[in-house]
Amino acid sequence: MPEFAKRMDYMAGSAAIIRGLFGAMNDPETISFGGGAPATEALPAETIRKIAAEVLSPDKRGREALQYGPVKGVRQLREIVAEKLLKPNDIPADPEDVLIVNGGLETMNLLCQVFIDPGDVILVESPTFVHCVEIFEMFQARCIGCETDEHGLVIEDVERKIQEYHPKMVYVIPTFQNPTGKTLPADRREKLAALGSQYDVIILEDDPYRELRYSGEALKPIKAYDRTGHTVYANSLSKIFSPGSRLGYVYADRAIIEKLFDAKTATNSHTSMVPQILCAEFFARGYYEAHLKNLCAIHRTRRDAMMAAMEKYMPEGTKWVYPDGGLFTWVELPGDIDTTELLREAANYKVAYIAGAGFFAGSAGEGKNCMRISYGNVSPEKIDEGMRRLGALIKSKL
Amino acid sequence: MPEFAKRMDYMAGSAAIIRGLFGAMNDPETISFGGGAPATEALPAETIRKIAAEVLSPDKRGREALQYGPVKGVRQLREIVAEKLLKPNDIPADPEDVLIVNGGLETMNLLCQVFIDPGDVILVESPTFVHCVEIFEMFQARCIGCETDEHGLVIEDVERKIQEYHPKMVYVIPTFQNPTGKTLPADRREKLAALGSQYDVIILEDDPYRELRYSGEALKPIKAYDRTGHTVYANSLSKIFSPGSRLGYVYADRAIIEKLFDAKTATNSHTSMVPQILCAEFFARGYYEAHLKNLCAIHRTRRDAMMAAMEKYMPEGTKWVYPDGGLFTWVELPGDIDTTELLREAANYKVAYIAGAGFFAGSAGEGKNCMRISYGNVSPEKIDEGMRRLGALIKSKL
Repeated sequence: MPEFAKRMDYMAGSAAIIRGLFGAMNDPETISFGGGAPATEALPAETIRKIAAEVLSPDKRGREALQYGPVKGVRQLREIVAEKLLKPNDIPADPEDVLIVNGGLETMNLLCQVFIDPGDVILVESPTFVHCVEIFEMFQARCIGCETDEHGLVIEDVERKIQEYHPKMVYVIPTFQNPTGKTLPADRREKLAALGSQYDVIILEDDPYRELRYSGEALKPIKAYDRTGHTVYANSLSKIFSPGSRLGYVYADRAIIEKLFDAKTATNSHTSMVPQILCAEFFARGYYEAHLKNLCAIHRTRRDAMMAAMEKYMPEGTKWVYPDGGLFTWVELPGDIDTTELLREAANYKVAYIAGAGFFAGSAGEGKNCMRISYGNVSPEKIDEGMRRLGALIKSKL
Repeated sequence: MPEFAKRMDYMAGSAAIIRGLFGAMNDPETISFGGGAPATEALPAETIRKIAAEVLSPDKRGREALQYGPVKGVRQLREIVAEKLLKPNDIPADPEDVLIVNGGLETMNLLCQVFIDPGDVILVESPTFVHCVEIFEMFQARCIGCETDEHGLVIEDVERKIQEYHPKMVYVIPTFQNPTGKTLPADRREKLAALGSQYDVIILEDDPYRELRYSGEALKPIKAYDRTGHTVYANSLSKIFSPGSRLGYVYADRAIIEKLFDAKTATNSHTSMVPQILCAEFFARGYYEAHLKNLCAIHRTRRDAMMAAMEKYMPEGTKWVYPDGGLFTWVELPGDIDTTELLREAANYKVAYIAGAGFFAGSAGEGKNCMRISYGNVSPEKIDEGMRRLGALIKSKL
């Protein structure tokens, strides 16, 4: 067989981690706090069925849904994104500068196509979302982790590392971060946008959890502070509509959108039409608002159940993040428990989580005693039972 | 703004051509032989509507359709691909070695991720599908055109160029080729597979038009002759199911599929679930066979109408391909008409086609007097009228 491309070597480590994430959790008796899915029960299946039964007829939008569509995405959906998702968050966007992608993550891939040559540096949070590190490594970018504290990215460290490494991009999930659940405060958002402008660096703001807020006040996106077009705003419809539909969007400066258009064309021509049309009709018919309320209510209960279970079952000295929204909390264990090793034993206790070490870019030993705990797709009863099991396992190691 | 990646320069020429293809044809009075869409009337909209109305309910497959799915694609659809599309074409495939992609073209992108480093050579047909050249150039591959005759690729020239350029891949559309409509004979298919094995080169067989045969006997795919795993079989569900659904598949050696899995994960996680499930149910419920028959009948009538219109309206000395299937014919004009220049005037005649020059990789002046004519999405009446207009324009230039 001919040799594989160099990028395949480069991404081998993160790819193995990701394969692990997607693979392991198939035992129905195991309570899994892995994954990153929203509550399956909350998915608007019956609404979508009804919409499909009507709009897919040949005399409505059936033929549009099945024929080739525009590279940038269905115009109606781009208008909805601009009007209902961007404008209320202080981003006044022209729908022409919105591009619909095949799931939120595709934006990271396309933006790398547009900006990243092998060896270019991308600054990321420590810890950050491992799936994006896999993407960055496929483009042979060098990922450098930046310090975080209890509020997220430490801006002074970002500036220091911009000066030292001259990165092309800073990748940040400012709201209910994956994996930690932390939210970056307003003043740091403003400073980060300014750093992008000052040092001519792309700030890639990935904001898929924003609408899933259960407590506290909404904060403006970094993009709302951007005055020079250096911030690119990436978001997903996975959490607020449906993950399986693979719908996301990116809003950026016109010059960047034009290049993203070419990269999208050369990746898969355009995003699937059927889900775009079903999603647009879902918003246009006014289902979104009540759906989001229900979604947040369900996830809030689960967040609360998880926080209560932490108090109840975790040994003294354990630290965890209280997330104001999203799907995750980040747990730091006392003693010197290695959560990667512990995971094997967790299988016997019929409970699963994601070990912390995988979330650090090119690290040596960081996050060894940490775990990402997702509560989005686990019922409150199972959260209690699963955390009881996990607590017992951890206590047996101390 | 930070500098764009080098690949964006590299692909600038083909990207501009593609943007032209997607852009121009919006005037409803223009009869367009551009595009590459199958007949809109033949799309199975009502069937899909009925399937959706049933299977998307929460107690059937609604939640599966909306939740995250497997990277490789829905198992049922991979089994259908293996059983109903590969096996009847002499490719006995394990569904585990089939990966579902977001439209047939995504395979070319993913295979480049897996195999192509900047500077690697890909041999292509002269002419070839310009959209794939755009993809190859995004990966900074060097595309070298190989000679074709009335039956397609000249195998001796491919072998010569393998020896001269040591390519990573040979890209070929063997059946009803895009843009020419030509079909590669069996003996050349067998030889091409053997060249892949002998010289350790990937033969990338792109076969999206195979099932749209209107005359003549079906030929085995190149992959059916492959004994060493060097041929990768790429196909699309765009023509036989629906282009807008963006569904395609790739069948390859296990070692390649494993790498494609990683590349797919780092591109967009997985293909949208709703279209995968609707497509799988479409096949599983037995709609496909009658649909394909109807599709071929409609397109056969159009092919015949196009061939009759060529005879009727084209000036003496014009050459064109009689395609046994697919969507295209390739026309070579007499005299020294430049079809790129002519296209501007064609707008006044309210007719459009795609100029030939764009289909040659890195060429100087090849195909200047040629055009790709697509008859798939034009009614027989409009084919006659459009070709009358085009013939009149061409004759006015001689």
